[in-house]
Amino acid sequence: MANSVSEEEIFNQYYEELEQDQLGPLWTKLRYMVTKEPAHDVEPYLWKWQTIHKHLLRSGELLPLGRDSERRVVYLQNPSLMKKGLIGYATNTLYAGIQLLLPGEVAPAHRHTQSAIRFIIEGDGAFTAVDGEKTYMEQGDLILTPSWTWHDHGHEGKEPMIWMDGLDVGLVRNLAGSFYEPHPDNAQPVTKPDNGSTLRYAGGSYRPVTERKKRGYPSPLLAYKWEKTKGTLHHLSQLQEADPFDGYAVDYINPLTGGSADPRIGTTMQKLPPGMHTQAHRHVHTAVYHVLEGTGYTVINGQKFEWSKGDFFVLPPWSWHEHVNAGSRDAYLFSINDRPVLEMLDLEKEQPYEEHNGNQPITGIFTPVVQESE
Amino acid sequence: MANSVSEEEIFNQYYEELEQDQLGPLWTKLRYMVTKEPAHDVEPYLWKWQTIHKHLLRSGELLPLGRDSERRVVYLQNPSLMKKGLIGYATNTLYAGIQLLLPGEVAPAHRHTQSAIRFIIEGDGAFTAVDGEKTYMEQGDLILTPSWTWHDHGHEGKEPMIWMDGLDVGLVRNLAGSFYEPHPDNAQPVTKPDNGSTLRYAGGSYRPVTERKKRGYPSPLLAYKWEKTKGTLHHLSQLQEADPFDGYAVDYINPLTGGSADPRIGTTMQKLPPGMHTQAHRHVHTAVYHVLEGTGYTVINGQKFEWSKGDFFVLPPWSWHEHVNAGSRDAYLFSINDRPVLEMLDLEKEQPYEEHNGNQPITGIFTPVVQESE
Amino acid sequence: MANSVSEEEIFNQYYEELEQDQLGPLWTKLRYMVTKEPAHDVEPYLWKWQTIHKHLLRSGELLPLGRDSERRVVYLQNPSLMKKGLIGYATNTLYAGIQLLLPGEVAPAHRHTQSAIRFIIEGDGAFTAVDGEKTYMEQGDLILTPSWTWHDHGHEGKEPMIWMDGLDVGLVRNLAGSFYEPHPDNAQPVTKPDNGSTLRYAGGSYRPVTERKKRGYPSPLLAYKWEKTKGTLHHLSQLQEADPFDGYAVDYINPLTGGSADPRIGTTMQKLPPGMHTQAHRHVHTAVYHVLEGTGYTVINGQKFEWSKGDFFVLPPWSWHEHVNAGSRDAYLFSINDRPVLEMLDLEKEQPYEEHNGNQPITGIFTPVVQESE
Amino acid sequence: MANSVSEEEIFNQYYEELEQDQLGPLWTKLRYMVTKEPAHDVEPYLWKWQTIHKHLLRSGELLPLGRDSERRVVYLQNPSLMKKGLIGYATNTLYAGIQLLLPGEVAPAHRHTQSAIRFIIEGDGAFTAVDGEKTYMEQGDLILTPSWTWHDHGHEGKEPMIWMDGLDVGLVRNLAGSFYEPHPDNAQPVTKPDNGSTLRYAGGSYRPVTERKKRGYPSPLLAYKWEKTKGTLHHLSQLQEADPFDGYAVDYINPLTGGSADPRIGTTMQKLPPGMHTQAHRHVHTAVYHVLEGTGYTVINGQKFEWSKGDFFVLPPWSWHEHVNAGSRDAYLFSINDRPVLEMLDLEKEQPYEEHNGNQPITGIFTPVVQESE
Repeated sequence: MANSVSEEEIFNQYYEELEQDQLGPLWTKLRYMVTKEPAHDVEPYLWKWQTIHKHLLRSGELLPLGRDSERRVVYLQNPSLMKKGLIGYATNTLYAGIQLLLPGEVAPAHRHTQSAIRFIIEGDGAFTAVDGEKTYMEQGDLILTPSWTWHDHGHEGKEPMIWMDGLDVGLVRNLAGSFYEPHPDNAQPVTKPDNGSTLRYAGGSYRPVTERKKRGYPSPLLAYKWEKTKGTLHHLSQLQEADPFDGYAVDYINPLTGGSADPRIGTTMQKLPPGMHTQAHRHVHTAVYHVLEGTGYTVINGQKFEWSKGDFFVLPPWSWHEHVNAGSRDAYLFSINDRPVLEMLDLEKEQPYEEHNGNQPITGIFTPVVQESE
Repeated sequence: MANSVSEEEIFNQYYEELEQDQLGPLWTKLRYMVTKEPAHDVEPYLWKWQTIHKHLLRSGELLPLGRDSERRVVYLQNPSLMKKGLIGYATNTLYAGIQLLLPGEVAPAHRHTQSAIRFIIEGDGAFTAVDGEKTYMEQGDLILTPSWTWHDHGHEGKEPMIWMDGLDVGLVRNLAGSFYEPHPDNAQPVTKPDNGSTLRYAGGSYRPVTERKKRGYPSPLLAYKWEKTKGTLHHLSQLQEADPFDGYAVDYINPLTGGSADPRIGTTMQKLPPGMHTQAHRHVHTAVYHVLEGTGYTVINGQKFEWSKGDFFVLPPWSWHEHVNAGSRDAYLFSINDRPVLEMLDLEKEQPYEEHNGNQPITGIFTPVVQESE
Repeated sequence: MANSVSEEEIFNQYYEELEQDQLGPLWTKLRYMVTKEPAHDVEPYLWKWQTIHKHLLRSGELLPLGRDSERRVVYLQNPSLMKKGLIGYATNTLYAGIQLLLPGEVAPAHRHTQSAIRFIIEGDGAFTAVDGEKTYMEQGDLILTPSWTWHDHGHEGKEPMIWMDGLDVGLVRNLAGSFYEPHPDNAQPVTKPDNGSTLRYAGGSYRPVTERKKRGYPSPLLAYKWEKTKGTLHHLSQLQEADPFDGYAVDYINPLTGGSADPRIGTTMQKLPPGMHTQAHRHVHTAVYHVLEGTGYTVINGQKFEWSKGDFFVLPPWSWHEHVNAGSRDAYLFSINDRPVLEMLDLEKEQPYEEHNGNQPITGIFTPVVQESE
Repeated sequence: MANSVSEEEIFNQYYEELEQDQLGPLWTKLRYMVTKEPAHDVEPYLWKWQTIHKHLLRSGELLPLGRDSERRVVYLQNPSLMKKGLIGYATNTLYAGIQLLLPGEVAPAHRHTQSAIRFIIEGDGAFTAVDGEKTYMEQGDLILTPSWTWHDHGHEGKEPMIWMDGLDVGLVRNLAGSFYEPHPDNAQPVTKPDNGSTLRYAGGSYRPVTERKKRGYPSPLLAYKWEKTKGTLHHLSQLQEADPFDGYAVDYINPLTGGSADPRIGTTMQKLPPGMHTQAHRHVHTAVYHVLEGTGYTVINGQKFEWSKGDFFVLPPWSWHEHVNAGSRDAYLFSINDRPVLEMLDLEKEQPYEEHNGNQPITGIFTPVVQESE
């Protein structure tokens, strides 16, 4: 009949009515909301150190530090997330920036609910002060500035100081949990001996009786010295088989809990001896890698990401990946991740890649996105 | 001078270069990434039961259930999040839908990593089956289908059955943790006695010796009967002062942990006696409310949201809110929230409203958004 | 040679010298200190209710309550432990007594580090007050008076009230942890509504929002009503197979932790339907049983202990045991044990008896020890 | 009247009847069972190293090791506990012995539920093997052999090796939890690299990714090297005020839990600089001290116990005590205690001594008990 209305028209009419009332039909969206495998907007990406370094030094020339420019940091902007308007996102949960502090400068004191870690890339003589205690930073060290602790950075050395900052910006944004407060003073008052937490826990597994009542948060240990990290990896490589997926690798832990050094941001250092080619696997957690030493590549979902000293790259959620040390010396990869959060929320999964003896066929080689000039 | 370049031009040139290399200057974005108070896109909203109900019944006429339409659910689409392309979001972390199951129907078995709760609105004779056990559902009951457990719904009664579904869709999406699997059978095999978990833990704080080794997950208790919830609130109102912000209120808990019944989705029932007007406060966690009984209003950031039986409304993060029972009988508000997640991650904060004796001046009255017809 | 000294003499001389210096040779004592299986001095024993009851009523005639006689209790003295000078020990860790309170009496307020539970045997109208709250007691109820909480008992009813007391006297003594304090008042001031904790948690698994910050200790639930305990066991017996060793049985738990209602004294109720004969097993933990209802026997290390309503008996550590309901109605056995302590300290083990299809040959029948009259 | 019976006679008659029925009147024993302050049989005692050493060397001459003499150990027998028939008790819960292993010897492999620690006094070249891994021992090291792990000792060096053993013999005996098993082989097979656990966790707070799933028990770290312990105490003494009661002191902890290295036996090392005189306090937990270095004295309940290098002494429960370094060099006291058990069971208390500015008047000087020769 000419007047008949098709079923499709009926449904479309119904859907429009729902939409007008701010409602929706689950049956057309279920596959979108509840996906078979993780859905996300994160693409892998790699930044060359040369590029970052160049821009960073330029920022040192251009920008003085002060209350209106508290931190001189060039951050990694994942282009796939920029398209979604997610400024400052390296992954869905993590932010990473590279910070430059010049001799004599102070990066003013503040606190925020975002957790932060620092990984030292170049220089010495600068410190991070946390809740009244200065910790001096050296290359390869990991420094914690736990959520909502007062922290500032100062530089008493002679050469520019460069480090990586890692924060859970995306996580906290998604949960609407951001709070920030500037300290009344530019540099907070120092009330405790320098490097106290580090020295107090430097020997390993001892707890001062004066800290018997201390809970795990904030961590009583604020710095992990590269010498110790490297030594531990050295021993590991003497003692046991490499982990099939990560080589010789350790998580930095809180001495009072045995859990992640920062309770929300996982931190891992891995050593790949020359020639090591790990097996591929994937997991829900995402990571930002920094190449501390070495030359090699990582295959992510079939695409080859070639890296050398200083580079940064992003591993998206649930992405196949494997690492190769293509150089003649040990490679060291430092990374931050959101594994602790996924584990607390019981959302972590892991899967080994089983085809082709555990290694992915290479289907492409990463080259940086080139922005069209206007 | 004609040749001189302004500082602004220099910076802009620099920013463009950064952008081309997928980098960004933190100093211009810090205030955006690390906000003084929670930043989010969630606006409060309220849906009238009459509207939902009308559309839901219509869906019953239009849509048969089956593998391609596993659930007949009309979901709440927060318009402020729709603008951001976030389909099916009531808040940044939570989804809520209203489900209709007709006599004789089966909503097919599946499982997903999203946690889900059900709150029964109308009808009886239908069941939820979880991991081989059927739980029959009655008005006012809370039913759990824990993350990654097989579940289906069937209806052996005579009248349409309506319930609220609550899932942590936004949370899981933000963490890229979604996994989904359909069960090979439409209805999973029933291998355990009906209502077993409910009866086993109905008496309260007893653990069968056969469950001595059981950990808290998944919860050994899958249904919380309205009769018990109501009774507990009755006793509370006899025993103690009302909570200034929530009236007489309880969280549903897991008997083996004392924590939230679902480990990620908080569930709360509150009773407001006639005339009760609570104090205003705000907290980071967000909530979706359902009016089980009563007439009144909630003031959210100065705006009045008038509710009556069956309505749903959304409380955004860090929003001042207070509740008023304007009717002559007890009002009962059921709500789901993301408090357990914020507490696990140490991101919850709470603040009482201190001006005007704790109550907000009313600056507007909510009316639904009207979509422009085209 | 005539002068030669035997090796034995040399060693004995050496041992004497050690002894003079308060030292000892491990090699002669290792098997004593570190035994292959648990070493202890606990023998099983059974007390008939008729005997206890007779003496208890007599104490009611003889002894007025007061500050010098705070409790009118006849306690179970295990004769095997009396031989070791362990006054008031039913087992190595547990004490059990039977208390009589007459109408109008007050058992004065005090507190001690020993944990205590009460199990109500006869009567009503009496209450236990804990930290300002009265809980009225009825037959079959379990009442907690957690370690170091103020408690007193009062009787507002008309008939004598009788209950079992269970304390971890031996445990606390062995650890030198006993502290005791009398309350300045005979009866502590009542500052909270009667039966508050019981009513607040009566409905089961709900936590008032006003108690969100509460930790598990002391338990927010002070009484477990017999009606609920019995109902839970009824449901269990409908829902599942009996536990092979314990029949239908539940542990009383703390709603905020899922752990033992009292954190150190385990409390269990078991139901044995007519004809049930459980399998034998043994475990490190020790127990004191009270027969709430029924007639039957328990075989302990081959010896038959015949019990009927009201009787008490002791299960030593690491002793084979099995229970038989020889009557025509359900039997209910209440028991206290030190399982929570052994589990916390990782010292619990359990072993099923595997010979003879899991039941012990009976090698003797218990008859009470008769003290020689002098 | 001649026939009248006194009240005392009536009660005595009643008490006799109770006794005949293995019952007792609580009102006459309550003060004994539930004491105002800890009741125990432990007296303080001190053993001179010279005496121990002499006897120990003699045992080396007399006793060959073998399956019938598995350990060549001279143990501390507290005379106050010997009077109670408690063989091998240093305190109510703790045993301490001094072990001698000669070059080439093997102390055969076994396991037991008692926890054990070793503190190395003299020598090197010997190892402890635990669950397939050898740990070489040097002076000042703490070695763990966790409960129920296979362990044996072997000596590949050239000089006699002497160490302290600490076990929770009394605790386990009181709880009837002793199990023991000899290993089928004299020395268990070595299946892991030497010193693996120590090297793996030597760097401090790192967890190999291969041990991400590891729980805290058994500890992944089996040896605490003196060099690190000493270094930590050195840093502490530079960084902070001494603890008023313990000087500069640390507890050895498990890197995966932050709790006591052995979950039941607390282990502490304290450094007292020359002239240090601590404040007195008391606590429920008991301890056995070993003087690693230095000369001084400890005042226990007013009695002076003078110690020098190598000596051992016992601190009873709830006893006032303060330490004095009377020498010109740092003194180091190692001690084992039952604090972890008391804390798990919520029975620990502590009290500072407040009179005389925190120091006890000295009322006596300890001299060893002299056994009457017969």
